[in-house]
Amino acid sequence: MSDDLNQASGLADPAAFEQALQAALDAKTKPPGSLGQIEELAALIARTRQSLAPRIECCELIIFAADHGMTASGVSAYPQAVTRAMVENFLSGGAASTVFAKTLGVDVTVVDAGVAGDPIQHPGLLQQRIAAGTANAILGPAMTASDLSQALDAGEHVAKGVQADVVCFGEMGIGNTASASLIGAKLLGVPVRVLVGRGTGLDDPGLERKRSLLMQASQRTAPSLDVKTALMEYGGFEIAMMASAMVASASQRRPVIVDGFIATAAALAARALQPGCERAFIYAHRSAESGHRQLLEALSAKPLLDLDMRLGEGTGALLAWPLVKSAAAMLNDMATFDSAGVPDKDQHAR
Amino acid sequence: MSDDLNQASGLADPAAFEQALQAALDAKTKPPGSLGQIEELAALIARTRQSLAPRIECCELIIFAADHGMTASGVSAYPQAVTRAMVENFLSGGAASTVFAKTLGVDVTVVDAGVAGDPIQHPGLLQQRIAAGTANAILGPAMTASDLSQALDAGEHVAKGVQADVVCFGEMGIGNTASASLIGAKLLGVPVRVLVGRGTGLDDPGLERKRSLLMQASQRTAPSLDVKTALMEYGGFEIAMMASAMVASASQRRPVIVDGFIATAAALAARALQPGCERAFIYAHRSAESGHRQLLEALSAKPLLDLDMRLGEGTGALLAWPLVKSAAAMLNDMATFDSAGVPDKDQHAR
Repeated sequence: MSDDLNQASGLADPAAFEQALQAALDAKTKPPGSLGQIEELAALIARTRQSLAPRIECCELIIFAADHGMTASGVSAYPQAVTRAMVENFLSGGAASTVFAKTLGVDVTVVDAGVAGDPIQHPGLLQQRIAAGTANAILGPAMTASDLSQALDAGEHVAKGVQADVVCFGEMGIGNTASASLIGAKLLGVPVRVLVGRGTGLDDPGLERKRSLLMQASQRTAPSLDVKTALMEYGGFEIAMMASAMVASASQRRPVIVDGFIATAAALAARALQPGCERAFIYAHRSAESGHRQLLEALSAKPLLDLDMRLGEGTGALLAWPLVKSAAAMLNDMATFDSAGVPDKDQHAR
Repeated sequence: MSDDLNQASGLADPAAFEQALQAALDAKTKPPGSLGQIEELAALIARTRQSLAPRIECCELIIFAADHGMTASGVSAYPQAVTRAMVENFLSGGAASTVFAKTLGVDVTVVDAGVAGDPIQHPGLLQQRIAAGTANAILGPAMTASDLSQALDAGEHVAKGVQADVVCFGEMGIGNTASASLIGAKLLGVPVRVLVGRGTGLDDPGLERKRSLLMQASQRTAPSLDVKTALMEYGGFEIAMMASAMVASASQRRPVIVDGFIATAAALAARALQPGCERAFIYAHRSAESGHRQLLEALSAKPLLDLDMRLGEGTGALLAWPLVKSAAAMLNDMATFDSAGVPDKDQHAR
């Protein structure tokens, strides 16, 4: 796969590709660089697709849902039952992400990666359940090595089923900002307290409790962990599955729109699983969840949006999709100074 | 019209409307406030439309194009002929704005507000020409009182022809960052030099020349001017027409998506023409043009996007349209905690 990635990010002659790409961008009827980050985004898409005219017409959102044993210790403002209820809300189209997806023309696939309780019976739900939620990671490993291996396989399998040109990944799992904070801390080797935030909306005492619980969870293991150990120790099924799906999507040269805090923790894990895959990642937005800034910095990510959102479910990724589509259209459909007969800057006679 | 505006911004009982609106937002299946600026945007749309379920399905972009006599003095990096060539590029669909509009499902109307040379013959072009460009505002008034009156009428007429739920305004006119800087300076009573930027891409000597020319132009008149005098003195036809179209759109309770630097100068002028109309304005993005920050601050505007763009043509407004549509869809289509049977925060049993 690393050959694929090297090719995807620059062809046989990366310097020539970059030169041709910059020339293509600058030939368009606009002052050079005047579309700012949209031009950088177009370049990322071109590199990922290995094409100077990458057609990007459809997008799919995959939402991985799973439960977290840690909720029993009180790491979230909402009860665990919300995960299941929200899966049902996705399936009936009433959630923010499914409303945005419909508005923006994006297909949605909901994956049960391990929701607590009996399996949800619904023809629209993709079953990839590892177990009915992880074990409580405050007290011990969230999952077994065999669970993790199954989750990584499932993520790859789900990603390989995508037909769209671009994929967004979202998640649902009460307690999963706790998992994401722990994974981020162990992959970056920083104290977990710097990555702990209010999640769905903890008050001050709740935040204090969460911080203390996560420090307890963190102390169970070494300050830095390899990616597989970090995922196994701290879960969840949805984060592991998403990380693997991100790797697989990048290897298929499919741009990945990364959502908020939890998806960015999955992106960090993906980079650790397969260095280089992150060249296909588009960071949708800067979340209001306080630890997101650190994760984005670790990935040298410059998100497209900064709307003070902190919902997850892929909502941020969805709102970035029209920017991605527009960036690709710029490369494909804009006229050049030559083709349109527009006088260029150099032709300025004063 | 001010009655309309008062109604549009708060109904007979504004406090009751605000309370109902906040309750509607908080009943949706998401942690309160977790959609950040999208919730504020939904509230603005609701207030403007005077409805808690404002249907926002289609959007139109109107591009006003005109030339500026100041280009003869060298205020732009590009020759005046670019305005006309870009109008032709809009009409054939090859410009950034028309490519984005097609990608995002937005209809485009191009208005000739006063392009230099003979009238452009094209069935797709709306003719509202005041003259073949303004006079050189470095040396004297850009237009006559009668020109201005005609431009304001034309703007209102164009706005009243819009059928879409939301309208974006864009512009094309080589030299119009110079006009926008001068109008902004005179309306805010600040020295023009603080609002002068590189426009389409002046180099350092070009920027110095532009600054010196605009200071010369500014010295012709008093430090502060009323809006009609500012428009008459400094133009252009497209800015005056856009300002009037913004007022008319707001009075029709149609949300207006304001593009970048020049459109924001028009928004300032619109507010001066009809105080209160700005409550219907959605600021699309923070432009890379250096004076934009000051204009946005004067309007207490918090733009949706910050992508380092500086192209104009309505490109920023277009990229904000999917956010506007999504914000309205949230109010219309998201389930409530009650309707979806999702446990709320208060039902947290630990």
